Amino acid sequence: MENNINKISSDELSLESVRESLISQEDTIVFTLIERAKFPFNSPTYDDDPSSSCVLSGSLVQFIVKETEILHAKVGRYTSPEEHPFFPDDLPPPLTPPHNYPQVLYPAAASVNINDTIWKMYFDKLLPLFAADGDDGNYGSTAECDLKCLQALSRRIHYGKFVAEVKFRDAPEDYGPAIRAQDRDALMKLLTFESVEEMVKSRVEKKAMTFGQEVTLNDKEEKVKYKVDPAIVSRLYGEWVMPLTKFVQVEYLLRRLS
Amino acid sequence: MENNINKISSDELSLESVRESLISQEDTIVFTLIERAKFPFNSPTYDDDPSSSCVLSGSLVQFIVKETEILHAKVGRYTSPEEHPFFPDDLPPPLTPPHNYPQVLYPAAASVNINDTIWKMYFDKLLPLFAADGDDGNYGSTAECDLKCLQALSRRIHYGKFVAEVKFRDAPEDYGPAIRAQDRDALMKLLTFESVEEMVKSRVEKKAMTFGQEVTLNDKEEKVKYKVDPAIVSRLYGEWVMPLTKFVQVEYLLRRLS
Repeated sequence: MENNINKISSDELSLESVRESLISQEDTIVFTLIERAKFPFNSPTYDDDPSSSCVLSGSLVQFIVKETEILHAKVGRYTSPEEHPFFPDDLPPPLTPPHNYPQVLYPAAASVNINDTIWKMYFDKLLPLFAADGDDGNYGSTAECDLKCLQALSRRIHYGKFVAEVKFRDAPEDYGPAIRAQDRDALMKLLTFESVEEMVKSRVEKKAMTFGQEVTLNDKEEKVKYKVDPAIVSRLYGEWVMPLTKFVQVEYLLRRLS
Repeated sequence: MENNINKISSDELSLESVRESLISQEDTIVFTLIERAKFPFNSPTYDDDPSSSCVLSGSLVQFIVKETEILHAKVGRYTSPEEHPFFPDDLPPPLTPPHNYPQVLYPAAASVNINDTIWKMYFDKLLPLFAADGDDGNYGSTAECDLKCLQALSRRIHYGKFVAEVKFRDAPEDYGPAIRAQDRDALMKLLTFESVEEMVKSRVEKKAMTFGQEVTLNDKEEKVKYKVDPAIVSRLYGEWVMPLTKFVQVEYLLRRLS
């Protein structure tokens, strides 16, 4: 059972609970990439100027993400400190009773949202690496899979806020001077543990191998072809997920004493 | 790469392409169950008579499924012969250009929709088996996970239409007499291969073990605790998925010569 941050009161926030959530979110990210890889690139999903027979404004994927966020806002998704919309303007208020999330994050720092960067990274860098060339016409399903990938990546990267908070509480004497000096480089140095990052990259690569294999009852090794290249998942973490998480951590910490 | 039925013309429909899709859909079903299992049962998600501070009519999960189907209808999801809504009444027409799905299914038989049965099976039988007791307040996320499970199960079970079509084309001389006699029992007998069903149950159990394990870099076996009990996934297929798929097949075949 995932150790869910929403049940963690401010006092209970620990590096262990944050770590467990990050590890569990790795599985979700690998699952969503595998599901997206079932479809080819399907470029009309991303066409900003669709044909005249289409009455959407903007691309299909923008429509699906925007409209899904409007629906999810109605059930309170974005009142959770773990969730961040890609299209935050004009979201409706929740129709459901408010959920009392424990006040874990420092209020002045809670507003960081780098989904614009995540959107560009996903569509410009990541997707072309793992989606096969081609067009099978399933644009709606493709957009739905993209949405799931984006949501999983956004959640993981913005979880940096919880990482930063727990690190700050563990060692305010280390972080305080760099925060007061608004020294990004010093904060980045304090937050960087290369051996841990290498371990995470190896673990997500192993997860891509494990979850992306063809499971058969036949025990002898057949030609192993993974549904998503494990090296790409490792690269996703090394080049984008972990650097962007650290960027979120730095942005959070810079506001932590405001 | 999944052999996608939408790209299969009527002539290319084969038992092999149908089998590949069914196998790929097993992965999706196991992934969605694992994601749902991250949350406890969260009974307020299913409360038909929510508190007065909630303005939804019906339960939260009904709201999420209904509203998501309305959104997905706008991008043409239910024009696909593989997709079936849980709330088919009053769905809006697509805003996107029509996709020319190959006419694979026999038109008079294509209308079968047993989502009411799948809904009851999921909430009354399956969910209580694998969701842990408890309430962590994440009702929106829980409903979203339920939606994904329902969609994956519905797609898999209604895929019986393609299974039935391919079997009928392979041996019209075997199926014709039973169809003309409208003999359900004879059709069920023709469609049942117990050794294949046992194999499928074993395979999905193995998938639940593979995809639901805790992947660590540590190679020595730790206490293995799966995220969803593999025996429950096997039971899901044996008691519900395969019997309901065969029910869909029989319903389809009964109309196949109309």
